[in-house]
This record gives sequence, C-alpha cells and structure tokens, in this order.
Amino acid sequence: MFESAELGHKIDKATHEREVPKLREALLDAQFDFVAARKFQVIILVGGVDGAGRSETVSLLNEWMDPRHIEVHGMGDPSDEERERPPMWRFWRALPPDGRIGVFMGSWYTWPILDYVYDNIDQAAFHDKIERITHFEKMLVDEGALVVKFWFHLSRDGQRKRLKALEKDPRSCWRVTPRDWSRLAMYEKFHEADEQALRMTSTADAPWYIVEGADPRYRELTVGKILLEAMRRRLKQKAKPAKASSAPPLLPPIDNLHLLKSLDLSQSLSKKQYERALEEQQARLALLTRDPLFSEISVVVVFEGNDAAGKGGSIRRITGALDARNYQVIPIAAPSEEERAHPYLWRFWRHLPRRGRLTLFDRSWYGRILVERVEGFCPEVDWMRAYGEINDFEDQLARHDTVVVKFWLAISKDEQMRRFKEREQTGFKRYKITDEDWRNREKWEQYESAVCDMVERTSTDYAPWTLIESNDKRFARIKVLTTLSDRIEACLDARRKKMKKQNGDKSKSRAGRK
Amino acid sequence: MFESAELGHKIDKATHEREVPKLREALLDAQFDFVAARKFQVIILVGGVDGAGRSETVSLLNEWMDPRHIEVHGMGDPSDEERERPPMWRFWRALPPDGRIGVFMGSWYTWPILDYVYDNIDQAAFHDKIERITHFEKMLVDEGALVVKFWFHLSRDGQRKRLKALEKDPRSCWRVTPRDWSRLAMYEKFHEADEQALRMTSTADAPWYIVEGADPRYRELTVGKILLEAMRRRLKQKAKPAKASSAPPLLPPIDNLHLLKSLDLSQSLSKKQYERALEEQQARLALLTRDPLFSEISVVVVFEGNDAAGKGGSIRRITGALDARNYQVIPIAAPSEEERAHPYLWRFWRHLPRRGRLTLFDRSWYGRILVERVEGFCPEVDWMRAYGEINDFEDQLARHDTVVVKFWLAISKDEQMRRFKEREQTGFKRYKITDEDWRNREKWEQYESAVCDMVERTSTDYAPWTLIESNDKRFARIKVLTTLSDRIEACLDARRKKMKKQNGDKSKSRAGRK
Repeated sequence: MFESAELGHKIDKATHEREVPKLREALLDAQFDFVAARKFQVIILVGGVDGAGRSETVSLLNEWMDPRHIEVHGMGDPSDEERERPPMWRFWRALPPDGRIGVFMGSWYTWPILDYVYDNIDQAAFHDKIERITHFEKMLVDEGALVVKFWFHLSRDGQRKRLKALEKDPRSCWRVTPRDWSRLAMYEKFHEADEQALRMTSTADAPWYIVEGADPRYRELTVGKILLEAMRRRLKQKAKPAKASSAPPLLPPIDNLHLLKSLDLSQSLSKKQYERALEEQQARLALLTRDPLFSEISVVVVFEGNDAAGKGGSIRRITGALDARNYQVIPIAAPSEEERAHPYLWRFWRHLPRRGRLTLFDRSWYGRILVERVEGFCPEVDWMRAYGEINDFEDQLARHDTVVVKFWLAISKDEQMRRFKEREQTGFKRYKITDEDWRNREKWEQYESAVCDMVERTSTDYAPWTLIESNDKRFARIKVLTTLSDRIEACLDARRKKMKKQNGDKSKSRAGRK
Repeated sequence: MFESAELGHKIDKATHEREVPKLREALLDAQFDFVAARKFQVIILVGGVDGAGRSETVSLLNEWMDPRHIEVHGMGDPSDEERERPPMWRFWRALPPDGRIGVFMGSWYTWPILDYVYDNIDQAAFHDKIERITHFEKMLVDEGALVVKFWFHLSRDGQRKRLKALEKDPRSCWRVTPRDWSRLAMYEKFHEADEQALRMTSTADAPWYIVEGADPRYRELTVGKILLEAMRRRLKQKAKPAKASSAPPLLPPIDNLHLLKSLDLSQSLSKKQYERALEEQQARLALLTRDPLFSEISVVVVFEGNDAAGKGGSIRRITGALDARNYQVIPIAAPSEEERAHPYLWRFWRHLPRRGRLTLFDRSWYGRILVERVEGFCPEVDWMRAYGEINDFEDQLARHDTVVVKFWLAISKDEQMRRFKEREQTGFKRYKITDEDWRNREKWEQYESAVCDMVERTSTDYAPWTLIESNDKRFARIKVLTTLSDRIEACLDARRKKMKKQNGDKSKSRAGRK
C-alpha cells in the first residue's frame, strides 16, 4: 500500500518555482467558480504519520486559496456537549455547507485507529468501525460532496529523521512532543492499522491519495494538482447527474395484501377506560423519565402518519407527562436554505438530544422515502439508498444508548374523509384543510405502498416501527404512551441488570483475591 | 413591588372551569396565526421564588398551546463550550427564530441575582449587570421580539407552606431539595435582590408581570390572559412599525474636514522593507499565538474598508502566520433565511471563537451602519440604535478576555479607480468588478460620512478602530499585522503582570502568616 510512497519522490527547485504560480492561479480560479456555484461542498481529510507534513499542507491550502471560504477543523478531544451525542455528531455539526471547503485534521478515522492500536478494541470491532466509515463517506458523495482524502506517509527511518530535524530547529521544536516519539516506537502497529483502514476505505467514490511526505516540494505540488483536478472535474458536471436506477423496482405485493390492511382499525377504548389508562400511563412515563438511570440515556421519538391521524394529540399526551425542561418537539416542514446546503440528514443530527433528554420529531427523516418518493421530489436512486442510510443513522443512535421509538399512525381512508369534513366545519384556523391535504389523499395507494416498504426496510431490532391503529383517538394515544414507556423501561432494566452483574463480578473478584 | 402579590388572590373552581376552555381555544388560535405569520419570536421568561409555580406554568403553556412550536430552555450550569464564550452566548444560541416561542426557566437574571445574594459581587457590580440586561432586552424588542416576563411570588410564609405541601405529597416530594430550604432561609436577601432587579428592568418595552403563586387557578388564568393579550396585540401590528426617527440627524462637519481626510495615504514601504517587516511581524504573531497564556484569551478581528482596499490580502498575511486549526475566517455576505429570522447580531454571536482561537470577520456587524444605512436597507431609527448595541456587544467580548481588533482599510477615490481598471483587465474571474462596485462608488461621500460616524461612535478603549492607510498595499499589510500583534501582546502582558502580582500577594500573605 505504501510502497510507492517510500521511493524517495523529489521535485527540484526550478520545477517547483515554475509550477507553483500557475497552480495557485488555477486553484484560486477553481475555488472562485466553486464558491459562486454553491452546488456542493468539498471535504478534505488530512491524515498520516506525525511529521509527514499534515499541518504544513493545511497551511498551504489556506495560503494558496482564499481562506475566507475554507474551514479547518482540528479535531481534538470531544467537548462535553459532543460526548453526550453519538461519536459522529461532532463531524456532522462541522460539515461545510455548499460552496465551502472543510478541512479535517483528525477525522472520523483517528479514534478507531487509536482504539485499535492501543488494544481497546479487537480487529473485528475495528473493521466494523471502518465499514461504517465507508457508508458515511458514500452517503456524503451520493449527497453531492466532493471528498478528497490525503494520507501523508513516511518510512520509519524517514519519520525518525524528520522528527529530529524538527526538534533541532528552534522555530519548529515546539511541534515535537513526547507523544510523537512514543508513537514512533509503535510504528509497526500503526502501520498495520493504517494499512487496513486505508485499504478498506479506498473506495471508488472517495479514494485515498497516499503522498510521500519527505520532500515538501513534491508534497505541495502533488496535493495542489490532485485537489485542482478533483475540483475542476466536479465543477464540469453541470448538476448532480440524475442517475437512472438500475435496481429492481419496489412493487406492491401481487395479491394486494399488505401490512396496513392487516391492522384492526376497529379497536377502541371507552371514555372511562381511556381516562384511567391515561392517568396510569402518564404517571408511569413521568416516573421512568425521573429515574436516576434515565440521565444516562436519550430518547428519540418519531411520529409519522396519515394526514389528520392525530400526531399532534398523541405528542401532547406524551409531553403532558414530562418535565418541560427535558424535551424538545421538532416539527419538520420544508428545509431551510442552510439545511438544503447540507446532506439531508444534517437537519436531524442537529436536534439530537443530550443525555437525560427526549426529542420528539413530528415528521422526520422518513419524509425522504414517503413524501419525497411519492411526489417525485427526489429521484429513485436517491430514495432507494435512504433506507440503508437511515438504518445506519438509527444504529448510531442505538449504540449511543438512545432509545429510538417510531410510530406510524394509521387511519382508514373513510375515517380521514370524516375528519377532513369535520375540520372544514370547525371555526379554528389551525384545523384548516389545505389543497395539499386533498392532493395527498388522491395518492392514498401510493403512500400505502411507500409506508409498507418503509416498515419492511427500516424496522430493525434496535429501532422497530410500531403501527398505531388510530381510527379511535383514545386507543391510539394509549398505545403510543404504553409503547414508549415499555421501550424506555426495557432499556433502563437492561442497564440495571448490567450494572448489577458488573458489581457482582467486582465483588466476586474482590472475594477471589482475599 | 410585591405587595399586590401577597393579597391572597384566588379564583373559584366554577369560574376557572368556565374560563379555561375559552382561553385555551383563543391561545391556540393566536399561536396558529403567529406560526403562520413568522414575523417575530416570543420570548417568555419564567422567574420567581421556589415553589411558586414556575415549572407548573411551563407545563401549562405546553399543554394549552401547540408544543411543536415551543422551545423550553431550562438553563442549568453552562457546558464547557459555553464557558469559553461570554456569558450571554448561551442565551443567544437559544434564541427562538421568528414563529417560535422560547421559554426560559433560568434566564439572564439568574446568575447576577445569585452572585449578588451570595456576595460574589457588590451592589454596584450587580446594578451594572442588571443595566446590561435592560440594554439586551431593549435590543430584542427593537428587533421585533415579543418579550413577556413572569415573576412568580410567594410571601415567606407562603413559600414555607408550599414547600411543606410539596414534600408531603409522594408525587411531588422529589421536587423539594435541600437547596430550596437553604434558599428559604435567605428569603430576605433574595427578596432584596429580586426587588432591585425587577424594578430596574420593568421597562416600557418589557415589563415584569408579578403573579401571586399560591393559588394555581389564579396563576393559570392570569398567565394565560396576559400572554394571549400580548400576542394578539403584537399580531395586530401589521408589520414592525417603521418609526420615524426623532433624534437630531447625523450631519457631516460643516467645514468638511473629517477623519478620513486627515489620513496620509501616501505612506508606503519599499519591497525590501516590506519583505523584512513581513517576516519579522509574522514570526512575532506566530510566537504570540503559541504563548501558553494565549490559550486563556480569544481574538476577534474585524475587517472593513472600501471596495478593492485589500482586505483579502491583509487577511492572508495574518493567516499565513497562524496554525490553521486555531482560526476561522468568516466572510459576511447577505444573511441566510435562518439568520434573518433572528436579531441581526445573532449571526455574529454564533461564530465567536473559543479560548485560544481567533475569528477573522471579512466585513462584519458594521454592515448595519455602513451599507444598510447608506443604501437605506434599514430605517434610521434602527441603524441609529446599532451604535449602542454594537458597543454593548464588543464590551461583552472584551470583558470575557477577547481582544477585539477593528480595521478600516482606506484608499483614495483615485486609487480605487486605478484598481478597478486594473481588475477589469486581468483575466481572473475572482477579480471581476460588478455593477454593484460601481454603484457603491457613486455614493463615495455618503460612505465617507458613515465611516466617520462609525469610528466616532464605536471606537472605544476596549475595542478601538485602527484606520489603515491602504493606497500602498505593503504599508497597509504591515500596519495591520503590527497592530494586531501589539494588541495581543498588550493583553498577554497585562495577564502576566496580574498573575505575578497575585502570586506576589499570595507569597506575601503566606509570609505574613508565619
């Protein structure tokens, strides 16, 4: 993998001096077009061994191009706000919008590699983490980003020489730390980890460029030319090419029997039953969310459903049981300008709750495979990949001790008509029926298919869908409340059990030592 | 101040049951109009003594209105990201956009009151903090926000009774903490602090409503009615009324002599002088920003100037000396949708640097009193108040150990013409001269007046303007670099001196004790 980067690449001074001015002009011009177009973002990863020229390269990019449109993220230890979210949250919040270049020193590769080298995780876990990275980068590229990954390499000898040279020069000696030397001592282990990571993530979408770091002139010209060609090529693609999907199309079952039809929508509760159950379940939820262990987990609740199915009413029955300081309700409508300039999941990542808190999404990322699919707002290739992207997203949440609860509130077509008519007759503006509601209704069957595909493809053991029979509002609200409490309770119980077991193990091992 | 809130206000059950349904309907309808209009935000402060119904009120608002458009901020201890910015940063980042209601439990009043009660600050410092709050709230209101402030009061006896009742009930006993009892013991001191804060901040723009907290029915109806009337009245005002300014207008000096004319634009450096000075000053800046003490301060640099005055070139000479991980350059163009939905300073607050970092603004909040004034994008009353608002903003930065450095890059009208023509002849797209550049040039004298007013009104000892004679680019860049380093150096020296003195005092007091 690194063979070619140990050949001793060199560029002579004359060539360098001749080439650099042209390259800088060309880079500046490409950047100008890129900023003016605001069609995509550039994400540059700067990785490699200590002393191989990473920070010099970042400074160079800022010098050669217009630093006003470049953001550099030197990712150190996460802040407390970052630690309370899944590990990728800090990278999501730092993603540049269209028309800006984001440079990451210390990236999503750093921590998996360190964990592996220092034996915090085994090879299988390491590969698993690396595999997730390929998913993430593929999503970025599919969303239009240009991802350019540079790896600066030095042989073990080369690295030792370089660190010594840096140490000798009073202008750079502060850059060499004891950590650099201790890492050099582990060169082999790093080498092995790096090679695995680079090999597994050198994809067609986002290949690595391994650059020999010994000769600054060679390094500079190489980096500059790769970046220039990458930007030029991407700029030439007039828009994101609307690829035709070559996947087998999703068709409704040929016997026309599907999940939604299997629901018994006639289930209902009497007023008396409802009031008793409501009080009971709200008290239960209130207690669960005040459990001391609750401060160690987060909860994300997704509400999707037919128009007029009663999402708002169900949400209010949940929030009625919560401390208002601990939750946020996020209504999802059309994305803002800033949100449109980022990958579509960005607007949801930014609202993820801290530990001990809940976020309730009134409509959600599932818009991608519901309304955007049915209305044709996004091409089939794009919504087809969303199933996997969403599963990845929710998997990250679940792994970070977030309970993900997803509700589909289903009503029959007749019941919807009844509610629309009822609403038309009330005087309250907030219940106004819009033309859009009527239009959506015309596509009832298409939405049904989309919902069935959604449930089939995104109902996972870590984030299952719950279908809520909602023709009777009372029945629906109680089922929502009960399901939510069940899920939180199960999570807290599992934690309690785990803690007990750990404590048991500890006292056992203490006993054994005596 | 609290007399009327100790009268024992009560509402009987029958009245309450009759009034509540009407009130809820009306509130929901007002909220619907408010969300649809997206013309302003509602900011609700919920303050008062422990046990007087603050959290009940917040829950009530969420129950009576649509919680999807309400954000509740229970402000606890600041996170590390928050501690590294001025104290108001966490409130700025939590400000709701137009069309949303933000409820603050624990607000910008909480910490000044606690500091005063627990003798961390004296009365003068307390008043100073409170005075700043009135400025902040006035700015919010002037920017269009509806600010509604509720204070829930109980007499000392009433509070004791209430805490005991809460403690007795198993459903609420968890809410009473030892802290509540220890605060009750300090009732008088809190009473005095609260009264001062409320009196000083009960302004015509944002008055306090003191609500007796003993009777829940009285409390609920009072809060609901005040909020309803406030929203209704604000909604009726079709748009923000374009008030005519009654202030004496800003006129240019009658003898036509002004600051910019007093600049000696002929100052220049030879190429050799420049190169030596550049190397020297960049090395100096590099060392200063790597000083261990630098990690305790932040730096904000503002670049304003005539078109083609060389802002970009000066910025690149600064960034060339910095570690790319420690700075951000923020180019300011037209605000995004999300930024327009907040007070105009919001978009600058969000980019404030953490400790040990620099933010360079290429154009800035001064747009308000330059382009927006000259082009008539905002009415005179609005830009007239911006001078004070900006001084307040920069004062907060300076108090939080942020070095604020502001440059005006001045060139002569002839020199600008020369540069425009030169640019028209180069092939580089990035130097394209737009129609707007020519239009701005036509208003040269108006911009000159605006700049002179700006310098006169916003050059403070904590954030002075430096005018940069920029007809010669070399001279300009060196003056920029030198000024920046001078300011950082002065700040670091002052810190070092203070530390030494403190250490000296410590060892003296140790010696004294022997």
